[in-house]
Amino acid sequence: MSGIVASGEKRLVLASGRAHPVLAQEVSEELGIEVLPMDAWDFANGEIYVRYGESVRGADAFVLQSHPAPINTWVMEHLIMIDALKRASAKRVTAIAPSFPYARQDKKHRGREPISARLVADLYETAGIDRMISVDLHAPQVQGYFNKPLDHLMALPLLADYVSASYGSEDIVVVSPDAGRIRVAEQWAKRLGGVGLAFIHKSRDTTRPNQAVAKRVIGEVSGKTCILVDDMIDTAGTIVQAIEALTANGASSVVVATTHPILSDPASERLRGSGVREVICTNTLPIPAEKQFEGLTQLSIAPLIARAIRAVFDDGSVTSLFDGDV
Amino acid sequence: MSGIVASGEKRLVLASGRAHPVLAQEVSEELGIEVLPMDAWDFANGEIYVRYGESVRGADAFVLQSHPAPINTWVMEHLIMIDALKRASAKRVTAIAPSFPYARQDKKHRGREPISARLVADLYETAGIDRMISVDLHAPQVQGYFNKPLDHLMALPLLADYVSASYGSEDIVVVSPDAGRIRVAEQWAKRLGGVGLAFIHKSRDTTRPNQAVAKRVIGEVSGKTCILVDDMIDTAGTIVQAIEALTANGASSVVVATTHPILSDPASERLRGSGVREVICTNTLPIPAEKQFEGLTQLSIAPLIARAIRAVFDDGSVTSLFDGDV
Amino acid sequence: MSGIVASGEKRLVLASGRAHPVLAQEVSEELGIEVLPMDAWDFANGEIYVRYGESVRGADAFVLQSHPAPINTWVMEHLIMIDALKRASAKRVTAIAPSFPYARQDKKHRGREPISARLVADLYETAGIDRMISVDLHAPQVQGYFNKPLDHLMALPLLADYVSASYGSEDIVVVSPDAGRIRVAEQWAKRLGGVGLAFIHKSRDTTRPNQAVAKRVIGEVSGKTCILVDDMIDTAGTIVQAIEALTANGASSVVVATTHPILSDPASERLRGSGVREVICTNTLPIPAEKQFEGLTQLSIAPLIARAIRAVFDDGSVTSLFDGDV
Amino acid sequence: MSGIVASGEKRLVLASGRAHPVLAQEVSEELGIEVLPMDAWDFANGEIYVRYGESVRGADAFVLQSHPAPINTWVMEHLIMIDALKRASAKRVTAIAPSFPYARQDKKHRGREPISARLVADLYETAGIDRMISVDLHAPQVQGYFNKPLDHLMALPLLADYVSASYGSEDIVVVSPDAGRIRVAEQWAKRLGGVGLAFIHKSRDTTRPNQAVAKRVIGEVSGKTCILVDDMIDTAGTIVQAIEALTANGASSVVVATTHPILSDPASERLRGSGVREVICTNTLPIPAEKQFEGLTQLSIAPLIARAIRAVFDDGSVTSLFDGDV
Amino acid sequence: MSGIVASGEKRLVLASGRAHPVLAQEVSEELGIEVLPMDAWDFANGEIYVRYGESVRGADAFVLQSHPAPINTWVMEHLIMIDALKRASAKRVTAIAPSFPYARQDKKHRGREPISARLVADLYETAGIDRMISVDLHAPQVQGYFNKPLDHLMALPLLADYVSASYGSEDIVVVSPDAGRIRVAEQWAKRLGGVGLAFIHKSRDTTRPNQAVAKRVIGEVSGKTCILVDDMIDTAGTIVQAIEALTANGASSVVVATTHPILSDPASERLRGSGVREVICTNTLPIPAEKQFEGLTQLSIAPLIARAIRAVFDDGSVTSLFDGDV
Amino acid sequence: MSGIVASGEKRLVLASGRAHPVLAQEVSEELGIEVLPMDAWDFANGEIYVRYGESVRGADAFVLQSHPAPINTWVMEHLIMIDALKRASAKRVTAIAPSFPYARQDKKHRGREPISARLVADLYETAGIDRMISVDLHAPQVQGYFNKPLDHLMALPLLADYVSASYGSEDIVVVSPDAGRIRVAEQWAKRLGGVGLAFIHKSRDTTRPNQAVAKRVIGEVSGKTCILVDDMIDTAGTIVQAIEALTANGASSVVVATTHPILSDPASERLRGSGVREVICTNTLPIPAEKQFEGLTQLSIAPLIARAIRAVFDDGSVTSLFDGDV
Repeated sequence: MSGIVASGEKRLVLASGRAHPVLAQEVSEELGIEVLPMDAWDFANGEIYVRYGESVRGADAFVLQSHPAPINTWVMEHLIMIDALKRASAKRVTAIAPSFPYARQDKKHRGREPISARLVADLYETAGIDRMISVDLHAPQVQGYFNKPLDHLMALPLLADYVSASYGSEDIVVVSPDAGRIRVAEQWAKRLGGVGLAFIHKSRDTTRPNQAVAKRVIGEVSGKTCILVDDMIDTAGTIVQAIEALTANGASSVVVATTHPILSDPASERLRGSGVREVICTNTLPIPAEKQFEGLTQLSIAPLIARAIRAVFDDGSVTSLFDGDV
Repeated sequence: MSGIVASGEKRLVLASGRAHPVLAQEVSEELGIEVLPMDAWDFANGEIYVRYGESVRGADAFVLQSHPAPINTWVMEHLIMIDALKRASAKRVTAIAPSFPYARQDKKHRGREPISARLVADLYETAGIDRMISVDLHAPQVQGYFNKPLDHLMALPLLADYVSASYGSEDIVVVSPDAGRIRVAEQWAKRLGGVGLAFIHKSRDTTRPNQAVAKRVIGEVSGKTCILVDDMIDTAGTIVQAIEALTANGASSVVVATTHPILSDPASERLRGSGVREVICTNTLPIPAEKQFEGLTQLSIAPLIARAIRAVFDDGSVTSLFDGDV
Repeated sequence: MSGIVASGEKRLVLASGRAHPVLAQEVSEELGIEVLPMDAWDFANGEIYVRYGESVRGADAFVLQSHPAPINTWVMEHLIMIDALKRASAKRVTAIAPSFPYARQDKKHRGREPISARLVADLYETAGIDRMISVDLHAPQVQGYFNKPLDHLMALPLLADYVSASYGSEDIVVVSPDAGRIRVAEQWAKRLGGVGLAFIHKSRDTTRPNQAVAKRVIGEVSGKTCILVDDMIDTAGTIVQAIEALTANGASSVVVATTHPILSDPASERLRGSGVREVICTNTLPIPAEKQFEGLTQLSIAPLIARAIRAVFDDGSVTSLFDGDV
Repeated sequence: MSGIVASGEKRLVLASGRAHPVLAQEVSEELGIEVLPMDAWDFANGEIYVRYGESVRGADAFVLQSHPAPINTWVMEHLIMIDALKRASAKRVTAIAPSFPYARQDKKHRGREPISARLVADLYETAGIDRMISVDLHAPQVQGYFNKPLDHLMALPLLADYVSASYGSEDIVVVSPDAGRIRVAEQWAKRLGGVGLAFIHKSRDTTRPNQAVAKRVIGEVSGKTCILVDDMIDTAGTIVQAIEALTANGASSVVVATTHPILSDPASERLRGSGVREVICTNTLPIPAEKQFEGLTQLSIAPLIARAIRAVFDDGSVTSLFDGDV
Repeated sequence: MSGIVASGEKRLVLASGRAHPVLAQEVSEELGIEVLPMDAWDFANGEIYVRYGESVRGADAFVLQSHPAPINTWVMEHLIMIDALKRASAKRVTAIAPSFPYARQDKKHRGREPISARLVADLYETAGIDRMISVDLHAPQVQGYFNKPLDHLMALPLLADYVSASYGSEDIVVVSPDAGRIRVAEQWAKRLGGVGLAFIHKSRDTTRPNQAVAKRVIGEVSGKTCILVDDMIDTAGTIVQAIEALTANGASSVVVATTHPILSDPASERLRGSGVREVICTNTLPIPAEKQFEGLTQLSIAPLIARAIRAVFDDGSVTSLFDGDV
Repeated sequence: MSGIVASGEKRLVLASGRAHPVLAQEVSEELGIEVLPMDAWDFANGEIYVRYGESVRGADAFVLQSHPAPINTWVMEHLIMIDALKRASAKRVTAIAPSFPYARQDKKHRGREPISARLVADLYETAGIDRMISVDLHAPQVQGYFNKPLDHLMALPLLADYVSASYGSEDIVVVSPDAGRIRVAEQWAKRLGGVGLAFIHKSRDTTRPNQAVAKRVIGEVSGKTCILVDDMIDTAGTIVQAIEALTANGASSVVVATTHPILSDPASERLRGSGVREVICTNTLPIPAEKQFEGLTQLSIAPLIARAIRAVFDDGSVTSLFDGDV
């Protein structure tokens, strides 16, 4: 037959946006490689320019971006980096968004609103991804906003094992700050060995998502160590009201555990003065020095992401990492 | 200029699948029109044949199908009817699925599962819909599985007004049978004037969704009329365990309210023997005579659907119907 | 350069729906592998749940489903299985539908009908197939309904070699039961060494596809062994009328050969009493025990499907299997 | 409410490619309008330039092109005209291809062939059509190659009424030149009042589609007026062999009826010397003066196309025109 | 026939992003309507929330956004607003981006770069636009990045008429600051009555687009009033070098005319000290007070945009506005 | 685990259309392989038939077509060949169009025109390409018309090195025949060591692109060897007027260098009589013998194309070939 025959080979590369270089560095070290060199800067009006410093032709490219403020800048940089990888003939492009942007606008809370989480999923698919990796989506249904495969990593084992080691000997109850998040609290309770469960019943003003009024504690918390869990902490208004309510109901102490430390102002200030015993989070988002505070513990998500990348590259069986049955 | 100029006109037609002719009849009477004539039958191997009995060229076509068992047959009939409308040059096709098929498989509960609700959304878009109307989606995120507009109707006002009229003078508490559904219970509690809230904390065996083991009642129910609310009742296992738990915790009586009466065997039998005071549902799904039982009240969803159809046809403002703030 | 380099490898897996496990078993034995383990069951309202029992990440996945009654169930199961493979990161998904569903609705016979065969092709592409394998499409144009490659296998060699071995020494004429299928009869006549050709000229009631009125035999059949050929036998009305017409025109005996034994009631009963000498078919569809009858011969299509799978996996030249010049 | 409200209006325009201006003129006269003015010429290397002479913004645009030799030029001009209409903001674009290009390559006759008819359908959809109108597709399945609605007009009533008026008093038999086209002959036989049917059984060399070897007449033709029917006549090799076979079998005379007069050389020469009594066709394709011959009758398809355009514009019921039950 | 018939009507609404409310106000006044009420704010991490204040169901919606710094925020807000319009069932959505974002990254200047202008076009189409309106695209080929119709407005008549009125009596030469922009200068020269033409020949450092080194003036400028034209002024580095070169070559004075006043720092400072006689621009972008300077003239683009909106709504012929032959 | 595991392999094949067999032959020799055998001919009405002579299943297929007159035929043949490769299960299809068709209609020069270059890009993507290779696009923005990766080769090094070798010792100035092409001339000037630059300022009649009126030489050419550069020469009207203008301005001699020798009549005749010293071009297009003339030098582009094919197949770093910084 006509033609040239050659054996196949594949090459993994890791590119990173500029939002959270420390995380990219940690992931690359876990993998034992260098981050792909890239020129990137902003025009004065905010337009972003990127160019890769070496060939990605035929590569199995993983492109990591974190999404802190200013989030739209980092989304657009991510999309542009994906476009450049596609046009530079990467064989496969996997975007990694540890903290999925606009995850909270995952439905129309009222008429004439957008569904921005679906829009963002479509933007990524349009830019040219072949697959997506994310951690602890605000709603697991966001996975269905993608037509491409999405590997959904869970930080729960990482966080819960830390909690277990630190507070396992106390009388623990897991608390959800919100009726809509109790399912997550149930998973925590199961992971911590079948401990008790409670939640805060509040009425939320749907037109101002960052503000809410906590009301009643439903479930038993008196004399217990409360593990208050949520997927993210933004301005910490809800969390701090929950801490107050728990304290008022006789909780002996409150520990907060969360995956995504958005920590928009005045979150750190509020938490500093809240009487919280410890706030445990991951580094899916960077926390600038001025927002650090006593009692804040940040665990690295890099080993989990690196294992996922390696598993995707190797086509290994990774259900133990993904969608995980805790 | 060249050409022929004419004034525009539009025509509403209502087609219906064979799953629930009574509902189609009710909707058509609300609209004051006839259901579009259609030949439809099954080949012996189950293949479905349909043909419309009159022209739909240029029409604003609404095609209604209910989705009881055998659900795959009704989904496929719906898709085939949409294809025929499109190829017969309907100007716009709006599918109405009052009870959205596969709504419960709205995420990967574990690895290597499908997301069938997204698949079904894609199948409808592929067949050729321009928009979708549905009632009380199991997860509101399913709206985001569509790229086309989806009008999300709520049965809550219909059901809650009935409950209010019947039980409004008693000491009511709204109960969620499941930690994952408390948000809906919160909406009920608000609609009923700020009454109390409770839920059943249970561990669900994720590999067998129709079976679950109820555990503890969290919240105050003793001496109260419990309104146990959920979007659907399938085999009623969860509901009946919740009734038992509420009774065991001193509830004075239990009333069940739900939108979608799937009532798969042995639901009716279970409910008959459960001591429930009343089961209130809508007719998004038909209930065959042999599944009727004493204390079952079925309210017609047809007026709501007809108002939505008319609003879509007239481009009226209908946020009061859709996504509604109760 | 940055990155990790590894050599490529590929892995073939075979998944199977629940419609025809015997065929899947035969194909897997031909390939020398196990069928991929899978949990699958029906909810009480007919919704289907599937989950693969081991990883398919990176696999070259072949997913086989037969399409007997209830056909819509098996189509939907096939689509859901494809969705799950795609979301579980199979590298390539090839659907195998030995008997293509809705193949007869391959055009608008009259206005305001669907083209369900194109719809089904679109549903498969939407669910996420990369390619399709099928056997003896009712119209070869259905191949063009796919944008993805379709490998079109032919059962003619399998069936004709059997006929040749059994009846080759007799005076044979190939007969088409229908004017629209004479092209297939021509291929048979050529394969059997240039024997004679005849057909039945009838008027078909287009509104009731399972019923037809046979009329005249066109061509010479008197004193001959008639090989009556068609791609499928559904209710056998057309075939039995053809047998009667051939007998009335002096045929010495009639043998029926077909690829797809749909055998909807009352096909088996009709054939039992028809005086047919032998009915030869393949097992693209299962035949339940109660439909078996004396004189029915079912040849296994599994070796052909297995060779096709292997050829696709190996990128071998397989035109001898596909689209074959007989 | 905010905004400006105005009443809707719609405007029909008819654009035409350069392949067959006479047909466009006839259609426009039937509609009582002018053809849309357009500049069109060829660059020296064959690139086509078009520009419309007046605004089509918001128009319901019909764009007619015939497809004689050089067919690729006319296909490309058609596509370019559609692109220009879309970018000039026509509200809806309906392409009219009376003789669908590449209709004969509607399947893979052998491995490693294209399916050019599907490709052409895709090219039209890519260029931007909203719908298509065509006449007597070689295979009706081509309708399914489109995702957009296709109105399939039939020339049979036009041709058959002419035959009936001219030869209705004679002893007629309808003859198919080819086993694959008998279904069309059956429709003719039915339309002509249930007259007899015959066909020519031949072996066709599949690698050279314009050449074929006629063999035997199957059916009764002796002493009869044979109406030899086909959808198109290309080089007339098959037709002339059929005429010879019919004459040799005692036919009293042969009349040929066809929709699409491709008449590639040496068709006219062959037909002139064939002894054919009359050749009846439509003007879906132009016939240059040098290809005209004694006994050739060309009936205008323009009234049929004009009625279809008007029906599409008016959203009238037109099943009597389309997909017609003869 | 079944159904309800009603006459068609259409309604124009104008929505506006938050980047340049003054322009939206001017456009709405030209149209004689109010801007559609909308709630819009930023979450603390930069996520944007929008909700329209009244129904847009069935509306012909125009959604205007300007794109100054921080440009990614305004792009994302625009996309989210489009998504909300689509999901709220606007009949048609026309985006207006007077100054198209990322227009300068309209090609790969070097390998491994993105083509961000195409990406942005794709993002808009994905979000759900039906058409786009823009002014003076950096490269007219960007129009081809859209599949949907794009109306390309030209500010040249507005700017040139002003120049003509102010400087028409002097000895004018039109100067391009860059070899790549001479085509625009040719259009200016033609519009100004066939005056002379010159350009600056420089070598541009392709890795730092905001910086360039002017070299030689090619063409006659001595003693003349130089009209230095470009589509946009960003940091004004190129323009100020051109002014210096022209002055050094004996120009009597230099007037700058541009459509898009990006005016990134230190543009205003540079221009203040450059000796430029006047800088004329439009308000496609807002100019904050601190960037205003003596000699800066900003002409309103609102009348042009309003005429375009009205023409699109009315389906009027508007080639005189668009793609205009100056 | 279940399944069969095998190691991966890849195979390069080169197919060629019929427009320019000599170029295909040269490329295949550079690669050291045979061109893929293919049957191809035209039906009498111009329809094209193709079939590959051996299997391409799993192949990395490169399909080369040149685009001289009759260009629409060669475009359609290219598309059909791509369709056949896709349906024959080639793993990846790269089209090579050395001279991109319709590259000059890359924007709407006036209203109601098509953007044919985008249309052509869409046709290629619809037919099924995975990537495209082209040489010296008329506008580099055409690269952005593709969603798939496009490798943009540059003939400048090939042509400029020849010019340097032949005329490097003379006093050279690079001349652009058109204001719109000066950027290319700048790249030439840089490549030739920083020589001078000039251009012809003319007014072009936009309705007849092949005709133009040269006006003035801007820049110094007196006594110099002028290298007149353009991407293509069509009828040579513009070029010959430029030669005349340069001669009239005292140029000592004029050499023409171009990538694409379209040479439509009367280009060769015009150039023969123009006094041009040498015309240098590549063989992206064939030049028939009757268009050859004294002083015409055609350099082979085959080595460049072959290197690009090999680089794409090998996933090598090839920025030095593509988008190259000269």
